[in-house]
Amino acid sequence: MTKKLAAEFFGTFWLVLGGCGSAVLAAAFPNLGIGFAGVALAFGLTVLTMAYAVGGISGGHFNPAVTLGVAVAGRFAWRDVLPYWISQVVGGVAAASVLYAIASGAPSFEAGGFASNGYGALSPGHYSLVSAALTEITLTAGFLIVILGSTDTRAPAGFGPLAIGLALTLIHLISIPVTNTSVNPARSTAVAFFAHTDALSQLWLFWVAPLIGGALGAAIWKVLLNPQTAEN
Amino acid sequence: MTKKLAAEFFGTFWLVLGGCGSAVLAAAFPNLGIGFAGVALAFGLTVLTMAYAVGGISGGHFNPAVTLGVAVAGRFAWRDVLPYWISQVVGGVAAASVLYAIASGAPSFEAGGFASNGYGALSPGHYSLVSAALTEITLTAGFLIVILGSTDTRAPAGFGPLAIGLALTLIHLISIPVTNTSVNPARSTAVAFFAHTDALSQLWLFWVAPLIGGALGAAIWKVLLNPQTAEN
Amino acid sequence: MTKKLAAEFFGTFWLVLGGCGSAVLAAAFPNLGIGFAGVALAFGLTVLTMAYAVGGISGGHFNPAVTLGVAVAGRFAWRDVLPYWISQVVGGVAAASVLYAIASGAPSFEAGGFASNGYGALSPGHYSLVSAALTEITLTAGFLIVILGSTDTRAPAGFGPLAIGLALTLIHLISIPVTNTSVNPARSTAVAFFAHTDALSQLWLFWVAPLIGGALGAAIWKVLLNPQTAEN
Amino acid sequence: MTKKLAAEFFGTFWLVLGGCGSAVLAAAFPNLGIGFAGVALAFGLTVLTMAYAVGGISGGHFNPAVTLGVAVAGRFAWRDVLPYWISQVVGGVAAASVLYAIASGAPSFEAGGFASNGYGALSPGHYSLVSAALTEITLTAGFLIVILGSTDTRAPAGFGPLAIGLALTLIHLISIPVTNTSVNPARSTAVAFFAHTDALSQLWLFWVAPLIGGALGAAIWKVLLNPQTAEN
Repeated sequence: MTKKLAAEFFGTFWLVLGGCGSAVLAAAFPNLGIGFAGVALAFGLTVLTMAYAVGGISGGHFNPAVTLGVAVAGRFAWRDVLPYWISQVVGGVAAASVLYAIASGAPSFEAGGFASNGYGALSPGHYSLVSAALTEITLTAGFLIVILGSTDTRAPAGFGPLAIGLALTLIHLISIPVTNTSVNPARSTAVAFFAHTDALSQLWLFWVAPLIGGALGAAIWKVLLNPQTAEN
Repeated sequence: MTKKLAAEFFGTFWLVLGGCGSAVLAAAFPNLGIGFAGVALAFGLTVLTMAYAVGGISGGHFNPAVTLGVAVAGRFAWRDVLPYWISQVVGGVAAASVLYAIASGAPSFEAGGFASNGYGALSPGHYSLVSAALTEITLTAGFLIVILGSTDTRAPAGFGPLAIGLALTLIHLISIPVTNTSVNPARSTAVAFFAHTDALSQLWLFWVAPLIGGALGAAIWKVLLNPQTAEN
Repeated sequence: MTKKLAAEFFGTFWLVLGGCGSAVLAAAFPNLGIGFAGVALAFGLTVLTMAYAVGGISGGHFNPAVTLGVAVAGRFAWRDVLPYWISQVVGGVAAASVLYAIASGAPSFEAGGFASNGYGALSPGHYSLVSAALTEITLTAGFLIVILGSTDTRAPAGFGPLAIGLALTLIHLISIPVTNTSVNPARSTAVAFFAHTDALSQLWLFWVAPLIGGALGAAIWKVLLNPQTAEN
Repeated sequence: MTKKLAAEFFGTFWLVLGGCGSAVLAAAFPNLGIGFAGVALAFGLTVLTMAYAVGGISGGHFNPAVTLGVAVAGRFAWRDVLPYWISQVVGGVAAASVLYAIASGAPSFEAGGFASNGYGALSPGHYSLVSAALTEITLTAGFLIVILGSTDTRAPAGFGPLAIGLALTLIHLISIPVTNTSVNPARSTAVAFFAHTDALSQLWLFWVAPLIGGALGAAIWKVLLNPQTAEN
């Protein structure tokens, strides 16, 4: 179990450092910045790379909503959910601390939102709470369907981390303007502490919506799609 | 059969939500928007991710032109074509509804074309009907050759969804300026209902041209390329 | 042999339609255009997708310099080189014709360079003939090393088309400013006929340099790298 | 051993030519340039492509920090470290020479930083020495975890080069603004000689920090993550 928790710690560290780091450090660099598309790619590649590296150890969740979803789907022990969540949040906060130390070494640094998630005034495009909730629930549900399907024994072996990482890229390509994209409560929590905005007051939504979405996606997979269950 | 139709429903849902969603929400975001290249990537990743997740259940078409093409190639039962088409269109319309609900939660929202397809005045670059038809036919034909070839038993196992998803990215990299890129009647139909333009009046082309192209590509594969048939 | 030549025809058709098509139609679209990076991705994806689809039929060269290189490396029959070259050039010209028909359907169309290759005044960044030759030779040589190495029996099976396609993306990321990137005489020939510039007068370089580079890369592989030969 | 050193020479040549070449030639091309995201992709693809091509010969390090890390992890003979380092540096310098010859063929060429790495005044975003060191150490450590994990016998076979190459893309998406991204002393050394800045005076950091990071990442893998060792 120690190694599993270490894998979740380092995987979520990498996710927050890479995904939020690219957003804070590189997205809006004058003229040459990577924009939302570059941030989307970075988030996806954190998961793709670490899932190939340590997925065989811990399953490679790096995300409390994923851990919940695979438990709902019956592929993960319920008693391990809380330890995983703790490792993920601690790994994320550690990464956000390192990122803050790096970012504050620039003469023009201002923390601003620090890649935190938000709705209304804290949404990049000022999307409403309802839009934000709908976005996070729907995309996390789709994420879990991709995760459960691509790691199913009937899917081509070895391609799961590729599909899952690129699904996270896709999710960011859609939804950065709406919520700055969470689908991951650990990622949201990690940077909310460092934002010089009111991000912490909105953090609840980025636990509630991804967790609902994760459970919903797992339920859809289990009931409607899972080829292992009876029928045809 | 229920699970196959559910897989086509959710796969096409994901394609429209992700592809059209990235176009509506993120393509033109000020300064940091993902542009046509980001939308192209998003469309491709919807298919790549869901084909790995549910391709083993339904074949992972998510597109009436693909369903027609694989039937023409003799790899899919003709009697299942219509049920697949219905699932695909219904899944696409459901996604467009969710996308409309999300998008309308922004203070500055205007539906505009809502990522619909078009020619002439409704083409992003004002391309003619002939250019639009030629583009859609040619690219859908090439798409089917990639699909049939990369899933052939002689192609490397497991790489089909990668090749097929990235083929859709490629197709969008070429043709968004011409027709906003369809090659998929379900995708075109789904958003045409929500466009505040005359997109519905041009929808016929985005059934006719992709279906012709899908059949043409399948015929080229079957007659000229298929290594399973006699000769060398 | 007919199927092999058909595969080379359609593969090169796809390469020119997709790579040059993205350059002509989408690269410089106002505000949302895909830029050189999008064109680089498109060129690579044409090869990635068609090599998965028809690579098992013809080897998936789609490029006279590749055909020469694999012959130099001893993996391809010399007597088949010329028929392959002819199929590739004819496929490329067919694609350029379709592309011209599509592109000319826009009200603002001007052929300009039509994605042709060049040096000096016809280089995007006005690079000299020497820079252009050095670029094309070096990059084609590297391309052949990737091709021969990644399809060697000791490399992981099935990943060749991925590595080769993305190598072509990489090559374009480096060298579009220098020569508009050829490394492929068939691609250069196909569009030179349609350019409203003096591209045809410079076409010789985009046969000579890629062919030298292809032979050089194959020789480096064979003599210095090939793990099949004696030693260690 | 000769073939191993040749593989490291050509692999590092490709890395510097492709990564630094895309930065020097294409990143800031007017309107259509590839930006930091394109450079990040190019760096990653150099490793992805050459690791598939020659990884089976030499292991595909192309980077002294990687060679150190795999030695620390016990997967590489210590006596081969120095020969590998020499091959890598020589290959990198050769590539930088070719790149300089190409780049100087443009009428507007100015060497400037020539894609060299730096901190303070030589950092693209003027990040401090501490930020630069922290960035290079942390990212190289993460890089080694990905390398060791994805090539472990328990990881899916064949996907290592994909994960490793895309990890290098990710690293560049994060850190180009901070140090112009090294994580590779050979790459830093190769271009420092050609920079018309004081890059050579800062080169020490881009040996020290990546080597510390490489050793650190390998130690983390070995002690905390490696599933081969006892426990669970």
